[in-house]
Amino acid sequence: MRFYDFQPAPSPRRVRMFIAEKGIDIPSVAVDLRNGEHLQPEFLAVNPFATVPVLELDDGTRLTTTAGCRAYIESAHPTPSLLGSNAAECGRIADLIWHIEFNGIMAIAECLRNSAKGMRDRALPGTVNYAQITELAERGRSRAGRFFEVLDDLIGDDPFLNGERLSAADIDAFVFVEFAKWIKAETPANCDRVINWHQRMAERPSADL
Amino acid sequence: MRFYDFQPAPSPRRVRMFIAEKGIDIPSVAVDLRNGEHLQPEFLAVNPFATVPVLELDDGTRLTTTAGCRAYIESAHPTPSLLGSNAAECGRIADLIWHIEFNGIMAIAECLRNSAKGMRDRALPGTVNYAQITELAERGRSRAGRFFEVLDDLIGDDPFLNGERLSAADIDAFVFVEFAKWIKAETPANCDRVINWHQRMAERPSADL
Repeated sequence: MRFYDFQPAPSPRRVRMFIAEKGIDIPSVAVDLRNGEHLQPEFLAVNPFATVPVLELDDGTRLTTTAGCRAYIESAHPTPSLLGSNAAECGRIADLIWHIEFNGIMAIAECLRNSAKGMRDRALPGTVNYAQITELAERGRSRAGRFFEVLDDLIGDDPFLNGERLSAADIDAFVFVEFAKWIKAETPANCDRVINWHQRMAERPSADL
Repeated sequence: MRFYDFQPAPSPRRVRMFIAEKGIDIPSVAVDLRNGEHLQPEFLAVNPFATVPVLELDDGTRLTTTAGCRAYIESAHPTPSLLGSNAAECGRIADLIWHIEFNGIMAIAECLRNSAKGMRDRALPGTVNYAQITELAERGRSRAGRFFEVLDDLIGDDPFLNGERLSAADIDAFVFVEFAKWIKAETPANCDRVINWHQRMAERPSADL
């Protein structure tokens, strides 16, 4: 098995932390997105969608999304469960991940990709160039600000998003709170539950990856 | 259990077809999105995100996303499997769903929500109003056009997206090909694999739901 990774990017980090929390080890291959390596023919032969993460299985199958990589790993290595070990947990964690993606990474990426000078014409990932849209950068910033409030509500009073045990939802929310710094969005002081939960997450060895 | 539904909308349809293909029956409650019922206090008490589908479990827990509803149902009613019955299938189907969402529903919604007169200030679902962005309507139309080509590649030469058996990925792609008609986007004549697969899907009883 091989894991195609790019250290600074949020999506492969979601899988990297997931692998670490499973206690398994998968050799990784670095793909330098900053230098456009993902748009070169060599990498497009691995993933025509031109994105990381990619998980290459031993039979050559390639999984090319965070969701795909994690669904495979969860099924192949069920313990500790990170996507739910019974129906209610599976439903609740899938729900949390969706809300965290929609309000978190999508909002932050909307702002970043539509404003960063280095991402001109790269308003969406993939092989097709799309022009930056100024109004979309502003909308993304507004949505990202709201993400912290949504997350504060989702966290509630338990140690983790799904209760007593870590799940992939905590990994995602942690990665996105860190990713928000790319657009200089910090957790507001009144979001105590986010601040406390973030401190606990930052102490985990997987958070250093 | 109760299923909050709105017949014309694509997201609850993804769950409605999933329930039908499982061969189970869940009583449903209609929420009239066209008349803004989802933004009234009664429904916000059910789902503060103001969206359908919602699956209400017998203990009162509510799952408020397509992903959450389906992960619950798959785990509670594993046969026939629609999200994968082994690790490789789970990974592959999750991958397919992600690509179909990103290239399909997100593109179509980007066009529709940023151009429809009836959706002024409703460029995103939820309780917060966002203004329509003309450039985003155009980008969505361009992306939706490309969706058919992406889908044609994903379908390949097997009867279904994941091979010999139907999965949730087929349900999603079918719903989005139908949803594309809302923005008057039809499958291009050169996408033969989409056209043939769509005919097979349209013959299933679940397609009438």
